Amino acid sequence: MNSKSYKPPRPVYLLSAGSVTGQKEKRGPLGRRFDLSGDDRFGKETWEKAESEMQRLAAGIALRKPGFREEEIDAMFAGDLINQCTSSSYGLLSYRIPFLGLFGACSTCAEGLLMAAVYLGNGFDRALAVTSSHYCSAERQFRFPLEYGGQRAPTAQWTVTGAGAFVLSAVGRDLVRCEMPFVPVIEEVLPGCIVDRGITDANNMGAAMAPAAADTLERYFAGTGSSPDEFDLIVTGDLGREGSAILRDLLAVRGIDIVKNHTDCGCMIYSETESDTHAGGSGCGCSAVVLAADLLENIRTGILSDILFVGTGALMNPLSINQGQHIPGIAHLVRIRGVNRRELLHPEKETEVQNDADGT
Amino acid sequence: MNSKSYKPPRPVYLLSAGSVTGQKEKRGPLGRRFDLSGDDRFGKETWEKAESEMQRLAAGIALRKPGFREEEIDAMFAGDLINQCTSSSYGLLSYRIPFLGLFGACSTCAEGLLMAAVYLGNGFDRALAVTSSHYCSAERQFRFPLEYGGQRAPTAQWTVTGAGAFVLSAVGRDLVRCEMPFVPVIEEVLPGCIVDRGITDANNMGAAMAPAAADTLERYFAGTGSSPDEFDLIVTGDLGREGSAILRDLLAVRGIDIVKNHTDCGCMIYSETESDTHAGGSGCGCSAVVLAADLLENIRTGILSDILFVGTGALMNPLSINQGQHIPGIAHLVRIRGVNRRELLHPEKETEVQNDADGT
Repeated sequence: MNSKSYKPPRPVYLLSAGSVTGQKEKRGPLGRRFDLSGDDRFGKETWEKAESEMQRLAAGIALRKPGFREEEIDAMFAGDLINQCTSSSYGLLSYRIPFLGLFGACSTCAEGLLMAAVYLGNGFDRALAVTSSHYCSAERQFRFPLEYGGQRAPTAQWTVTGAGAFVLSAVGRDLVRCEMPFVPVIEEVLPGCIVDRGITDANNMGAAMAPAAADTLERYFAGTGSSPDEFDLIVTGDLGREGSAILRDLLAVRGIDIVKNHTDCGCMIYSETESDTHAGGSGCGCSAVVLAADLLENIRTGILSDILFVGTGALMNPLSINQGQHIPGIAHLVRIRGVNRRELLHPEKETEVQNDADGT
Repeated sequence: MNSKSYKPPRPVYLLSAGSVTGQKEKRGPLGRRFDLSGDDRFGKETWEKAESEMQRLAAGIALRKPGFREEEIDAMFAGDLINQCTSSSYGLLSYRIPFLGLFGACSTCAEGLLMAAVYLGNGFDRALAVTSSHYCSAERQFRFPLEYGGQRAPTAQWTVTGAGAFVLSAVGRDLVRCEMPFVPVIEEVLPGCIVDRGITDANNMGAAMAPAAADTLERYFAGTGSSPDEFDLIVTGDLGREGSAILRDLLAVRGIDIVKNHTDCGCMIYSETESDTHAGGSGCGCSAVVLAADLLENIRTGILSDILFVGTGALMNPLSINQGQHIPGIAHLVRIRGVNRRELLHPEKETEVQNDADGT
């Protein structure tokens, strides 16, 4: 079992983020934190084009906050749920930035941050990580046309209409562009293995992905010798209520107790009174907008200081389900720590982070 | 315009490769070089499962040649053309190796090598890059069911039934596992930008991708100050005959002449007499098996010593075409150099490659 995690040899800062959502998400408990919320069309004539537009907008917001021009960004990592990841390729077409397409289903946000951290740990300076999902485009892709009016299972999750974008930088002097007491730093990453526990119910993605999350967390704790209570929060995205309960149980029988500090992006995004969301939110956009708008903000203000962000994805397609295949899951882990910005800007006061402000 | 290429700070060796194809590819000029060629089913009841099986077989062959166990590999990078990249997730499910899913359409082979090179340049030791395509699964995904018997346009390319896998290592002592006069080393990589020149003809992928290849090559030559004649071969994959002609023209008007040493994997894989292949081969598997079986072999034996491998992909899906969208292209560049194995094993004789045999 390979449990080798990666710590960037120089700090990788999560400098800024952009979050764009639809109205259902706007009505949820985090609604006021999103940068922009529109209707489901975003001025476009199809849902697929609307999803692309959300990526374009989210990336623009993330770039604008620290004031970066396109040519200052070395690469963008992006992916989504749609066939051949077209929400990303059309959405980011207008940016003249080298593009590396990812597919990690709902784990794409974490996968993008992971790849960007490796990229920046090692020579490149700045990267963008972007992802999205859209309820309407995902429903017709994976389940039924909306017009069919199919009834939803209690274990089903509601695909979030949302896009999140993140600007990452390994350049110390970029810190002066951002006003925040604490800077979110990607401390460590651990890629996930594909895990298949024989789930075949396409209406219970939480159950399909929970074993992968358990596997990654178990490998992380074993590999680093750490324990769950060392972290302020272990946040999965997006197992929903069903999958979260399974994850806690799976880890409990292995002697790992995460009950006290575990939460899930899919359980955070919608009000309990919101109709039809059942087991919670899902989709690449869910963990992306929760991280962008809520978790990172709580790190920036010092409410959270050390979290494990575990993106989970289900690696199937409608055809594979029809051909009787199981639904394998995957989970990528990103550890994000809040570091006092003043200490980063004046590294002589702090030996631990002495390489941060080299400005290279 | 960001032209920042990446040179791994320590050498990344392309230690071994595995190539698996169908019968049409077996009949082509490179047929005898492939490791394994089967019928289109590979013992499975569906084409999608057959494509997954080819990935599993190719990865197994690539791992077996240098004799690696799964736990010695830090990550695998894989992707394919099928919706939600399921050929990769099901194909590689049986390997207990951290998995990072990619989507780059037919550029996936180059994207995987690029990502693996960055990964290994920086702390990780060994990686696997895998990709595949299958004529039958791709046709029903992107065009028509085979039973429909649609006629093919002269500019159309034939999706290769094939899978290629590569074992990359940054560990000097791994070199003793491989007998070859020259070791293929990833010298430099340059990620591509998405380029859209308004092509809407889904039967002319070469035209859609050629501008992206031209863009990447132009950025590479400008960024590095090199010129085409410094390389033994500039090999694109897969523009086919139509796209290759367009690429040469596009570069010629910018004062860059690649005519003398340019070739394309799509033009190499099928005999000219092979029926219905028209403009040549395509699909993720095309450039992967040509690189795995032919180009790398020519580097290992010293026939080639310095090549630019440029993977090209078309970033659309059938729905986006139906919605009237253009077909954007992308091209990722990987420079592969053959380095005398004896010099790598006895670095004291060679200062330029002195870090190669550290064996860390």
